[in-house]
Formats: sequence, structure tokens, C-alpha cells
Amino acid sequence: MIGIHLFLDRRPLVSHIAVSNLMKGNKMNRYWSAAARHIAPYTPGEQPRDRKYIKLNTNECPYPPSPKVLEAMRQAADGTLRLYPDPECLELRQVIAEACRVKTSQVFSGNGSDEILAFAFMAFFDRGEPILFPDITYSFYEVYADLFRLDPCLVPLREDFSIEPGDYNRQNGGIVLANPNAPTGRGMPLADVRRILDLQPERVVLIDEAYIDFGGESVIPLIGEYPNLLVVQTLSKSRALAGLRLGFAVGDEGLMEGLNRIKNAINSYTVDRIAMAGGIAAMRDEAYFRQTTSRIMATRERTAAGLKALGFAVVPSQANFLFIAHPGCPGEVLFKRLRERGILVRYFKRPRIDNYLRVTVGTDEDMEGLLQALRDMPDIGADGA
Amino acid sequence: MIGIHLFLDRRPLVSHIAVSNLMKGNKMNRYWSAAARHIAPYTPGEQPRDRKYIKLNTNECPYPPSPKVLEAMRQAADGTLRLYPDPECLELRQVIAEACRVKTSQVFSGNGSDEILAFAFMAFFDRGEPILFPDITYSFYEVYADLFRLDPCLVPLREDFSIEPGDYNRQNGGIVLANPNAPTGRGMPLADVRRILDLQPERVVLIDEAYIDFGGESVIPLIGEYPNLLVVQTLSKSRALAGLRLGFAVGDEGLMEGLNRIKNAINSYTVDRIAMAGGIAAMRDEAYFRQTTSRIMATRERTAAGLKALGFAVVPSQANFLFIAHPGCPGEVLFKRLRERGILVRYFKRPRIDNYLRVTVGTDEDMEGLLQALRDMPDIGADGA
Repeated sequence: MIGIHLFLDRRPLVSHIAVSNLMKGNKMNRYWSAAARHIAPYTPGEQPRDRKYIKLNTNECPYPPSPKVLEAMRQAADGTLRLYPDPECLELRQVIAEACRVKTSQVFSGNGSDEILAFAFMAFFDRGEPILFPDITYSFYEVYADLFRLDPCLVPLREDFSIEPGDYNRQNGGIVLANPNAPTGRGMPLADVRRILDLQPERVVLIDEAYIDFGGESVIPLIGEYPNLLVVQTLSKSRALAGLRLGFAVGDEGLMEGLNRIKNAINSYTVDRIAMAGGIAAMRDEAYFRQTTSRIMATRERTAAGLKALGFAVVPSQANFLFIAHPGCPGEVLFKRLRERGILVRYFKRPRIDNYLRVTVGTDEDMEGLLQALRDMPDIGADGA
Repeated sequence: MIGIHLFLDRRPLVSHIAVSNLMKGNKMNRYWSAAARHIAPYTPGEQPRDRKYIKLNTNECPYPPSPKVLEAMRQAADGTLRLYPDPECLELRQVIAEACRVKTSQVFSGNGSDEILAFAFMAFFDRGEPILFPDITYSFYEVYADLFRLDPCLVPLREDFSIEPGDYNRQNGGIVLANPNAPTGRGMPLADVRRILDLQPERVVLIDEAYIDFGGESVIPLIGEYPNLLVVQTLSKSRALAGLRLGFAVGDEGLMEGLNRIKNAINSYTVDRIAMAGGIAAMRDEAYFRQTTSRIMATRERTAAGLKALGFAVVPSQANFLFIAHPGCPGEVLFKRLRERGILVRYFKRPRIDNYLRVTVGTDEDMEGLLQALRDMPDIGADGA
């Protein structure tokens, strides 16, 4: 079975990733804990400082945050910063609750959705039974499972990168699914999530909706029905606030209390006063949000058409990125060529997807730059022109 | 031996705190992990919304942050917030390195010193050997030890709340000391820290200098000599930025790399763009920093004299708070009476210190309000007047 790791003995955890990390010969320090020694940390997309790039590698929003958000943050930059923020983030949670049509007690907010995912892994998953997630998905899940010494089980996606709900009909200690999935961009029908929830009433089903606002179908409306459904979202992408670090979780009150218990055992105040003010303004400015996300979706569809015309295979995307491969040129070669031409995209050297590129949807101008660069490559442009 | 917990079997960790927490009958949720069930989270000082208080309960700075800090943050509230922050916090770390006279590679920054402490517990401590810290100290240490399933060993302070370095001459898996200590305010001479470092070259010695800028002696100058010395500081107190969530660690590069490995396995971007800008400005404005901390120290000494005149026992403080007890009135009674009079202080119902109050040093006016309220109490005012 692919990727099942069962660590029932008490040796320090060394998974296949960790082993490969050790083998790379990273310098170890004698004072590190077993966890620090054996973890293979997540590698975020590069944030280069050397030159100006068309930056399509970290799924950032190509448009700035709402002017109302910037104004709210400037207003919040005052003398009250000497005081701790509200550890319960009450007002922010109220505004999120309104936007999501849930109760305030069903909302948790934190320093980016990554932090919330980490807290959720700690709050709801135990060693012993496998934590299920797709073999191709956000690679941080494997890092969390590794760090918290859980037993991850990677469930293969179908050939077309879609999820087969029936594959999750097995014993487990929890399920994690990104919807739309990353880095593929494929969305999951609400009925499929419901089917998994029905199969697994005893385990937390975590749906990571980081990219839901670009055409996906959120399962937040199911929260009242399933006390084990945990939904995580972020303001980094659709609200253009990657630089502010804000995410939230929505779910049953019991799950929110579990997240709070872990948060309050690590850092009572994870969201600062200015981020809180910005987040409130961002969730309130529905019009700006609709406008930006619509523009990005329109650009995505135009870009997908342009890429297909050049002979690319383009995975259907409900996210703010496209997952593409070209029959005439290996992904890694394309990645390097684009980088030389000042265009950054993301390449993952992993089984099944090592011929693909993940390309963030930028402005129309950014994407025209990308298409033009590709057209200029003889083995690509020749194909489709 | 006081407080030694050895969990060498594989049962979920249930320490004495956790048990008492379970006994309080907190509602448990069926989806919680063993960690979420058994942890007893830290309780921060209250942030009341019901009325206006003289707020002397969370060791916040009574003065606002430097005007240059507020201006830098307003400038940073721009369109670049759509982009992730620098995950390495390079510029902020450079400025901190300059202020601390160390190398940039010897600095780590994070979302408040609590987060950094949590990362340090994960990065450097393992189960099996006891983690040593004083029986009276920042109560978050015990929470971290509990959450990460370590084996804490509480080492009793001397009768006067000072630390006996010789008590740390025993087998251990790591040492954590707050200097000045909280909630006592007592500082530790540099020679005593050095003695512990000399006794324990094989273990990380973590010195939490959250309150060092109010008259204490930082051990940062020792970093070049001891590769196992980790110093943690915060911008919450002496830089008046509790609302911004910024802390930093200083130590050998190997230790910094350990912290980075854990951070990058939880959340690649813990410090947001605006906090980064504010932090840089705060570390640069040395003059404002000197002025504010001097004022607080002067107010502390005046207040201590006033309290002694009223018959209080006042622990010598090198922090921005005072730890006090009165022979004529129990701490808990005083705490409640002050609260009724609109003055919030901190009371810890814990062995050895349950007759004490921790009182943050506010403005001169705040402290005069406190002294006047105490003078008005017959069993206090009569004593010293």
C-alpha cells in the first residue's frame, strides 16, 4: 500500500521523507530534539530578491487588497498596540460568522490557514490509526503528520487527479482533503464530500478550502449536519492578504474548542491588532471580493484556452492556479526556461506530477507574458501555432 | 521530588495539572486527540470589555509605541500585502542582530515570544530526561512540557524567590529560566547563568528575557561562548508592542536552524509584513526605547517605596511589574477588592505564592490610583499611615 507508515514502536520517527532529508547530508546539531532532527520541513515557493519576475509561483492574488482594508489597518496603527489583542478575536469571528452564515462560536481564527491546519492535526489526530489524504495534495499535510508523529496514509488520486470517495471507506484516524485540491486545482463535488462524511461519522474530516472562492463549492453549509466536519479557509488568496497572515476554521463548537485548547497551549495571541482590523474590513467588503475573484476566474479560463491552443494538457481548475503539462517538453525543463525568461512558476519533483507545472493566475498582462514566452519556445510554439 | 513526571509508557499523558483540569468537569468532545483532552491551556490575564479599568494585570507598557513605529506600519499598509512576507524575516533579523551585537544568522524572529518558546520546546527537548525549571515561574513552561509530552521537573526557588544555580547540577534534558523571573520580578546575576551553562554543556539552557530591558543583565554577550545558550526576548513589553505579536530568539546558528526546522514544519510565515515593518522601526528607535523603559523603572521604584510604606512585602524587581504581599490582608481578598475599585492586577492561586499579587507598573497616575485605593482600605492604610 502506498505511503502507509505505522510507527508503533518508540523509536524516533523517521519517515521516507525524513530519511531522504537525512541522506541529503543536512548538517545536524547535537542539541536538536528527535523531532527537529527528523522532520523534513515544507519548502515554500521562492520569494526572490535578485530581480523582477512575473511571479506565478505562490498563488498570490495579482490585485491589491481592498482600499477599505488598507485604510482600516492604517487606522489600527495607533497607541492601543501597546495592549495585547483580544485573544478570542471576537469581532473578527463575528464578521466571518456572518459571511459564512454560521454562529460565532463555530468560527476559529488564526495566523494563516497553515497554523490552523497544524493546530487541527494536534487537536484531532492521534497516532495509531492512519490519517488519510491523497497522494497528490498540499505537501504540508505530510509534514504535519511527520512532525506530530502520526501515521499518514496516502490515498492515490484517480488517473485524472480526481478523488474517489469510496477510497475513504476504510479504518482511519482522520481524513484531510484540499478542495479544490492543490496543486491540481481540481474541485470536489459537495455530494462526494457528503459521502465521505456519511462513511466516517467517528473521525474528523478536514476540508481545506484555501482555494474555494475561485469557483468551488464550499461545504460550510453542511456544518450543522456533521459535528466532525472541519473547514479551513484563508484570506491569503481570494482576499489578497497573503502578507497579513489570516486564516479561519469553521465547524462544530466542540471542534472549535479543541482548536482553542491547542492554541492556548502554544500562543494565546496569534492574530495581532492590525491583522484583526484588516481581516474585519476584508470580510465586509463583499463587492471588492466578488470583483477580484471574478476577474481571476475569467483570466484563468482565457489562459487555459491559450495553453490548450499551444498543446498543453490543462487540468480543469476551480482554483487561482492551473496545473499543466506539455507532451513536447518535460516540466522541469519548462520550469527552468521560464525562470530564465523572468517568469516564476512552481515545479514539484514528485511521482506522478513531475512533468507538471503549477502556474498561478496573475493579471491578464502576466498571463499574456507567460503565453508569449511559451510561444517563443520552438518545441512548444511550433506545436500549436 | 516535587513535580517530576516520568511518562515512559505509551499512555496518553495525564499530568497533575491535566488531571485537575479533567476533574473540573470541562466538557470533552469525542473528536479531540489525547493532547487536546489532557492539556490544561495557559490562562492569559483578562482583557475585560465591560468597563474602563486601571489595567495592571498583563504587564503591558503604559506608553504607546514610538511614533516612528506607527508611521512605519501605516506605510507598510499597501498593495504589497497581497504578497507573502519574507519567510526568513531577513531585514528584521538584521536590525535585531545589530541591536544585540550578534550575527543575523544568530537571530530568529516569530509571532511573539510565546510562539518561539513553544518552537524551542519542540526543537530542543525530548521525552525521557527531566526538563528543569523553577517551581515558581512563567506558567506557560509547564503547559508546553505537558503539550509536547515532556517530563517537567520543577526546581524549588529559594525562600526569597531567588534561583540557586547549584540546584541545576543534575541530570536533565534541558533547562528553562526566566530572567528576570515571572511573576516574581527577581533578576539573576550573569555569573549565576554562566555557572549553570558551565555545569550543563550538553543541554540547551533557555533564558527567557521577556522582561530584561527593565534593569536586568542580558546573557546575550555569552552567546559566542556557549553553543547551547538560547535567549528569547519580546517586543511586547519594553517596545510597547504587545498588540503586534513580535518576539525573537538569539543563539548559536545551530540552535537557530533547529527553530527554523520546527517553524517551517508548522507555518512558513509567522511574522506578517506590517509587524515586520513595525518591528524594524521599533528596534531602530533606541532613544524612545531608553526613555520609556527609564520612566517605567523610575515609576517602579517610587511605587515600591509607596507600597513598603503601606506595610507591603515587595520582592526586588528588575521587571515592569512588582510582586507584593501584605501581612494584614490575603492576596485573593486584595485582588477582588481592587477589581471592584476598577483596578486589575494578577493573582495566581498556586502554592507558595497564593498570598501575592503581581502588579504591572503603569503610569505614575495609574500607580497613584493603586496606592490611593490601598490607602483607603482600613486594614492596609491603617498599617502604614
